Amino acid sequence: MDNKQERQFVKEIADINTNFPQWYTDVVLKTELADYGPTKGCMIIRPYGYAVWENIQRQLDARFKATGHKNCYFPMLIPLSLLEKEAEHVEGFAPEVAMVTKAGGETLAEPLVIRPTSETIICDTYSKWVQSYRDLPLKYNQWANVLRWEKTTRPFLRTSEFLWQEGHTVHATREEAMKETIDMLHLYAEFAENVLALPTLIGKKTEKEKFAGAESTYGMEAMMQDGKSLQAGTTHHFGDKFSRAYDIQYLDKDGTHKYVWQTSWGVSTRLIGAIIMAHGDQRGLILPPPVAPIQVIVVPVAMHKDGVVDAAKALVDRLVKAGIRAEGDFSEQSPGWKFNQYEMKGVPLRLELGPRDIENGVATAVRRDNGEKFAVSLENIEQTVRQLMDDIRLNMYEKAKAFRDSHVKEAHNMEELEKILNGGNFAKVMWDGDAACEKAIKEKYQATIRVMPFDQTPFDDKCVCCGGKATTVAIIARAY
Amino acid sequence: MDNKQERQFVKEIADINTNFPQWYTDVVLKTELADYGPTKGCMIIRPYGYAVWENIQRQLDARFKATGHKNCYFPMLIPLSLLEKEAEHVEGFAPEVAMVTKAGGETLAEPLVIRPTSETIICDTYSKWVQSYRDLPLKYNQWANVLRWEKTTRPFLRTSEFLWQEGHTVHATREEAMKETIDMLHLYAEFAENVLALPTLIGKKTEKEKFAGAESTYGMEAMMQDGKSLQAGTTHHFGDKFSRAYDIQYLDKDGTHKYVWQTSWGVSTRLIGAIIMAHGDQRGLILPPPVAPIQVIVVPVAMHKDGVVDAAKALVDRLVKAGIRAEGDFSEQSPGWKFNQYEMKGVPLRLELGPRDIENGVATAVRRDNGEKFAVSLENIEQTVRQLMDDIRLNMYEKAKAFRDSHVKEAHNMEELEKILNGGNFAKVMWDGDAACEKAIKEKYQATIRVMPFDQTPFDDKCVCCGGKATTVAIIARAY
Repeated sequence: MDNKQERQFVKEIADINTNFPQWYTDVVLKTELADYGPTKGCMIIRPYGYAVWENIQRQLDARFKATGHKNCYFPMLIPLSLLEKEAEHVEGFAPEVAMVTKAGGETLAEPLVIRPTSETIICDTYSKWVQSYRDLPLKYNQWANVLRWEKTTRPFLRTSEFLWQEGHTVHATREEAMKETIDMLHLYAEFAENVLALPTLIGKKTEKEKFAGAESTYGMEAMMQDGKSLQAGTTHHFGDKFSRAYDIQYLDKDGTHKYVWQTSWGVSTRLIGAIIMAHGDQRGLILPPPVAPIQVIVVPVAMHKDGVVDAAKALVDRLVKAGIRAEGDFSEQSPGWKFNQYEMKGVPLRLELGPRDIENGVATAVRRDNGEKFAVSLENIEQTVRQLMDDIRLNMYEKAKAFRDSHVKEAHNMEELEKILNGGNFAKVMWDGDAACEKAIKEKYQATIRVMPFDQTPFDDKCVCCGGKATTVAIIARAY
Repeated sequence: MDNKQERQFVKEIADINTNFPQWYTDVVLKTELADYGPTKGCMIIRPYGYAVWENIQRQLDARFKATGHKNCYFPMLIPLSLLEKEAEHVEGFAPEVAMVTKAGGETLAEPLVIRPTSETIICDTYSKWVQSYRDLPLKYNQWANVLRWEKTTRPFLRTSEFLWQEGHTVHATREEAMKETIDMLHLYAEFAENVLALPTLIGKKTEKEKFAGAESTYGMEAMMQDGKSLQAGTTHHFGDKFSRAYDIQYLDKDGTHKYVWQTSWGVSTRLIGAIIMAHGDQRGLILPPPVAPIQVIVVPVAMHKDGVVDAAKALVDRLVKAGIRAEGDFSEQSPGWKFNQYEMKGVPLRLELGPRDIENGVATAVRRDNGEKFAVSLENIEQTVRQLMDDIRLNMYEKAKAFRDSHVKEAHNMEELEKILNGGNFAKVMWDGDAACEKAIKEKYQATIRVMPFDQTPFDDKCVCCGGKATTVAIIARAY
């Protein structure tokens, strides 16, 4: 590839350092992860983006099933009256819902709401399914589309319709429901680390930030390269709030009827936004190998030379047979064009194969995560590539973690807080637990308490905002 | 199990011979495949039913990908104006759509339609994605929920919301689109045979029965045990009708712009209804092993005896490790109760394990498809079970095929047609191709032309209805 071509490629994507939002949009569109459609606020997930989602789904679903959860499917339309049964819940979601008022050519007697989340219809059903202690626990999940009407939208980060999973569990005791809430948070964090190469901060959400209708909400926050936080997953403990609103009781061994204890938890296509913004660079996407639709791209060099195409095809076949998602690009584009194309698409590993490589029994490998270039023997290349996938994932995680760790800074007062936030960091603060301070911080710095981490070791005794007696360690950041 | 218990079990399900519709509903509810919910016309797919759907999805999706198709996701809400672009299409679907008129607390300027199918929004997008001959073919599919407002509904067979896949492909030539239409029909039929153990009749649909907006529709019909037909899948050839309506053109190698040629094709959760009605019996479900959520149920006999539970658990572990979906039932219910429970649930194979079995190094196997009972050695039991799964699938297919073959009968006139249909059969007829005759048959016998099979060898020269000159072999049946 000549310099002109290279410049053109780089030019297609806005500067990551000076215009991160545009860089994000450029990457989403140029790599064909998603596109805008004719429906306002909704995106089209293109095959390359959907393949990432399928890889997320498969590996997350396996974890759900391994921990005793089963999938099911509830209707997307919810009678309005059902939504209104839990007061806080409806207050939280009513402003965002879309309503079906006409169907089959007639005006409906009662409007139907497109699910913004499914607690209401699921709890209504659970009140029928749960009768005896023998029915408990119920540990169900569904993969579904949901709709929350949004004014300002961005692909993957905030769209009116999005895809997600929502787990809804029912337990006999408060302790068991609490354990499920925390277990699922840790499951999400483990998944983020080992599949998405994403370090996260987990902990409890404040009263203000919790899910509408929950007793408590726990969150997993990931740092993006602009220092903003992305809520990547949440788990909710409902106590018996929904079971009282929807009358879910079971006959216990002792012969008395008792209300059940519930949880819900979810992650969404937002995770794809997190991958883009946590790992990408000026050349485009960098995809973690476990979710990359193409893990290895084989690029033949000097295709016109005898044996090159055949050798490259044989190499792709070998890798595919070994369970590696490998593809070859045998189009008429130049090797340089291809190098850039697949770097932009975030393919973790490129294997170049030219006449000299073949002669030497090697392929020339180039890692997307660190740009390293080296020869790998064609003998046992399946094993080498498998090891490289693991190395790349680990390096991506370590890099993101080092970035994150160096961008979480302690703030002792509002001045420090402002400086830390404006410097593209998360602030670790001591807080007095008062919603007034939380509100003041939000109004002044457009930043929120993301989580109160499980490690509550104090490092100061004064509230960062009012200087009053601090009770709580909190992580403050601007957020998507 | 005593006789009283057995009688009670059988009593729970209506008689399959005298009340097939009630038998169907009883089986769906008792086996917990699905349940009714608070939303009129919509069903809840319970974990047992959803697990069947997941097995269908996984094996069908693998076939799509092996034939070069990719998944993507389009918004579920479609601007009303977009739906109206293809005249026949909107005429066909407008009466069934549900409309969102309010969202985010406001009345929308233009109503949004919940997709009844996605041709309109996908074609609108394809007009942007398709520019050059290099972009072709596009072979995309999506797994999604759709909504068609229905007055009379039955779980899996006809519900307002249902789950399905819809493939939408774009080709440079009419021939290529035609080939895709036929290839996908054959893919469906092969899947029905090898995964669902379901013999089907495939062929072309009449003008009257084709998809709204298609140039031609092809269908796969399956015979249920009441002699009615269930449309189990369809593929559509659009010609250039949608590409002209939505302006999808490509720049060909010769430098001129040309309209593309398109197809779409789909199957839905209806397939679960087909499985129930093609294979079930008085004891309940009979699930084909490739889609059964539990392929093998291990039932310990005399659980209180030393070593029985341990041996049964070890057996389950061995089978699971071998990739077989095996479970054990270690609850306090009697073995007889368990036998009946898992027979009702359609589990293909039961393995009973008691002290004497263990002593003899065997398990007692009972096949759900034919009731055969026999000892199988615990040595190599993984291989034996794998072979049995295959035998059961094949036997289920052969049985369903023999039933189907003996229930397709030639009718030469209206009298014969009536007798054949009333006898619970499909009628094979000669037809003059006139819509008037098709209509007369429907009005008289509530039966429709299901397909015009690819084998058009004539067996008469007179139309079954009017006695005029026959041109076409057709299969007529009452249908779900």
